[in-house]
Amino acid sequence: NTEPAKLLLIGYLSYMLIGFALLSLPFAQATPVAALDALFIATSAVSTTGLVTVDPGTSFTFFGELVVLLLIQIGGLGYMTIGSFAVLALQDNLGKMRARTCRAAFNLPEDISPKLFLRSVVIFTLICEAIGAAILYPKFAAAGVDNPLWAAIFHAVSAFCTAGFSLFSSSLEAFRGDFTVNATISALSIFGAMGFLIIVDLWRTLMGRQRNLGFTSKVIFRLTMLFLILGTAVVMVTDPGIIALPAEERIMTAFFQVMTAATTVGFNTYPISELSMAVLLVVMFLMVIGASPAGTGGGLKTTSFAVLIGLVRSTLKGRDEVRFFKRRVRFEQLQTATASLVFYLGLMVAALFCLLLTEPALDFAALLFEALSAMGTVGLSMGATGELSPLGKVVIIVLMTAGRVGILTFGIALASRDESREEERDNELVM
Amino acid sequence: NTEPAKLLLIGYLSYMLIGFALLSLPFAQATPVAALDALFIATSAVSTTGLVTVDPGTSFTFFGELVVLLLIQIGGLGYMTIGSFAVLALQDNLGKMRARTCRAAFNLPEDISPKLFLRSVVIFTLICEAIGAAILYPKFAAAGVDNPLWAAIFHAVSAFCTAGFSLFSSSLEAFRGDFTVNATISALSIFGAMGFLIIVDLWRTLMGRQRNLGFTSKVIFRLTMLFLILGTAVVMVTDPGIIALPAEERIMTAFFQVMTAATTVGFNTYPISELSMAVLLVVMFLMVIGASPAGTGGGLKTTSFAVLIGLVRSTLKGRDEVRFFKRRVRFEQLQTATASLVFYLGLMVAALFCLLLTEPALDFAALLFEALSAMGTVGLSMGATGELSPLGKVVIIVLMTAGRVGILTFGIALASRDESREEERDNELVM
Ligand SMILES: [K+]
Ligand SMILES: [K+]
Repeated sequence: NTEPAKLLLIGYLSYMLIGFALLSLPFAQATPVAALDALFIATSAVSTTGLVTVDPGTSFTFFGELVVLLLIQIGGLGYMTIGSFAVLALQDNLGKMRARTCRAAFNLPEDISPKLFLRSVVIFTLICEAIGAAILYPKFAAAGVDNPLWAAIFHAVSAFCTAGFSLFSSSLEAFRGDFTVNATISALSIFGAMGFLIIVDLWRTLMGRQRNLGFTSKVIFRLTMLFLILGTAVVMVTDPGIIALPAEERIMTAFFQVMTAATTVGFNTYPISELSMAVLLVVMFLMVIGASPAGTGGGLKTTSFAVLIGLVRSTLKGRDEVRFFKRRVRFEQLQTATASLVFYLGLMVAALFCLLLTEPALDFAALLFEALSAMGTVGLSMGATGELSPLGKVVIIVLMTAGRVGILTFGIALASRDESREEERDNELVM
Repeated sequence: NTEPAKLLLIGYLSYMLIGFALLSLPFAQATPVAALDALFIATSAVSTTGLVTVDPGTSFTFFGELVVLLLIQIGGLGYMTIGSFAVLALQDNLGKMRARTCRAAFNLPEDISPKLFLRSVVIFTLICEAIGAAILYPKFAAAGVDNPLWAAIFHAVSAFCTAGFSLFSSSLEAFRGDFTVNATISALSIFGAMGFLIIVDLWRTLMGRQRNLGFTSKVIFRLTMLFLILGTAVVMVTDPGIIALPAEERIMTAFFQVMTAATTVGFNTYPISELSMAVLLVVMFLMVIGASPAGTGGGLKTTSFAVLIGLVRSTLKGRDEVRFFKRRVRFEQLQTATASLVFYLGLMVAALFCLLLTEPALDFAALLFEALSAMGTVGLSMGATGELSPLGKVVIIVLMTAGRVGILTFGIALASRDESREEERDNELVM
């Protein structure tokens, strides 16, 4: 059934167009912004990517920045959540169809009511963002930032929604050595990226409704921790620039750059283009894996990664079934994970081919990094974004949209209906 | 069962070590060759890759070149074929165990006797190589090549075994405009890369034992044709350097560079490093897909690619089963294809990470290209091979070995036995 996928895609496209229209208004712009750049920023915000062709901190008025922030919040929570919550507030009841779509979108277990779930999600989000902003405000004020309260709110929302949009032209590089800012942004990003499912699960465990964390939550939690710890260790010992930092900044800088890729938030405290290529490969790997399902982040998702690793291990060890963490993996899960990976790779090769044609002057590694960053809705860049030609911007816009809607959902939404149903006999493909 | 995989790996490693020992002999070397370079060349020959750290045409004596040629022939036919054929010649009968291993290695249909198959393969190979050498000889003689008969034999064997080793320091660039050389090398490479299965199938069809080509042969044949035609068209219209060539050389040059990647033979008639990055991406894509199972080429294999495309199409269209070419794909085939892809990607990321650390002075694209070329046993290079540090050479040696043994077989050979058999209850992974 391709209907829900089409609806989701159309929903996001609508928000992008509304955002584009609002950002095109003269009183949204502090300096003239080209139409394609306004569309780029709107797409980047709704998809919570954070790639920017113009500096949002100087190009937009307060109204423009507010539009960007609202687009981020809408994109981060998912337009489904927002829409459902609005309905909830009005009539205290979800339509049956809407409840079903919501259940499908969040992979909600059968015994949790969508109504309760949505309300909890929105309340939890606002509380997290408020706490984050309250911690960031004195820090930004002390650093002499313009309008520190607004900057604190903007960065807290941008972190929890894993958008990575910053009002500062060099992202958070000025706060590289500030533990409080590092910890606050990281905590918000990790909470957002781990996903609502884990939050619900944690909440149910805390409320005594279940004894242990569910299997999915365990997998997500363990993989996220593994990536963060292993990644930080690798970056700390291999990158010459980070090795040269003062001891106390070294671990924090390594952790932040790994965290920003793994959660797909996309802020940075160190200039990305100055990282060594080996570390950039680690960052690219993390950007491909991405965050967790039903979270605000992008990428292939940690659960897909878990299934694929389980598949390889089981195949190499000659098991007669695919297992992971001692559990059997269902065929449909394998199919979803594999199809996502293959479609991701296909879209990546096609997009990269287009970018190499439209941007002959740019470096291969920078373009690959840019495409992976867009598809994973990460927003880190080796510096290609500002140099893109109009056609290159269009390619990145498509990738950010696909990344936000979900790689596979994007494909399903674009796929034609299945028309050939007949099957032939000689079906033995020898590999 | 990991035994056959281990045997295969040990078999190839034995041939590599024998080759290394022979190439280390003083009368094999025309100019001094370091031990690591001798091992590199031996591995490159047995794996039919063709990457070289020293120029084989000037570094080795005739004896050394003969050793390289024998290693190529052994690697191309597979040590199993050679070994089985030796037994056949001695006792006109295959041991039961050997017959089973051979059947497994070539995915031989039940109704074809391994004995007949092996004999046909070797005879067919020698006939093809002899015809190829006979056509190349007058061309090489006319071009004033040293010892043209030897050069003709060497290049014919190197082409059919998709090894791509050349006695000329600039591969076949001197023959870019020569139709006969282009056609002969291409035909030999395509025959070798399509694989013995297709040859058996064609032979049975021609002998009237079956009405049509089998499904596997059809898939391999159609995909190979598709890649060659589509690839040539794309390269012809996008690469500025090839567009600038005289009209008659343009199509031939585009075709040859696509053919060399798709068959994984690795000769070139145009300097690879002068191709545009967009075309290099096409070449990389073809090198990843690779040739066909049971052929002499490397890569993921066209059949795996077919299965994965079938999986994506079926998933996007919401089919309840995975189909391709209107046939249902079996679960084990999906598992093999997916595990190969994921293991390939994992090994690639690990190898690239090592190369980026050991070769900080080399370009990211050149190293990625080099690693893909080694893993696919292709042998094309953007120029990194000669610049590699000793550790970098070791990484490439490992990749060439994995590529020849087969990505998945390599993993199975290295995997430990499966020890945990218990399974837990809570096995619902929500994606
Ligand atoms: K982001
Ligand atoms: K080769």
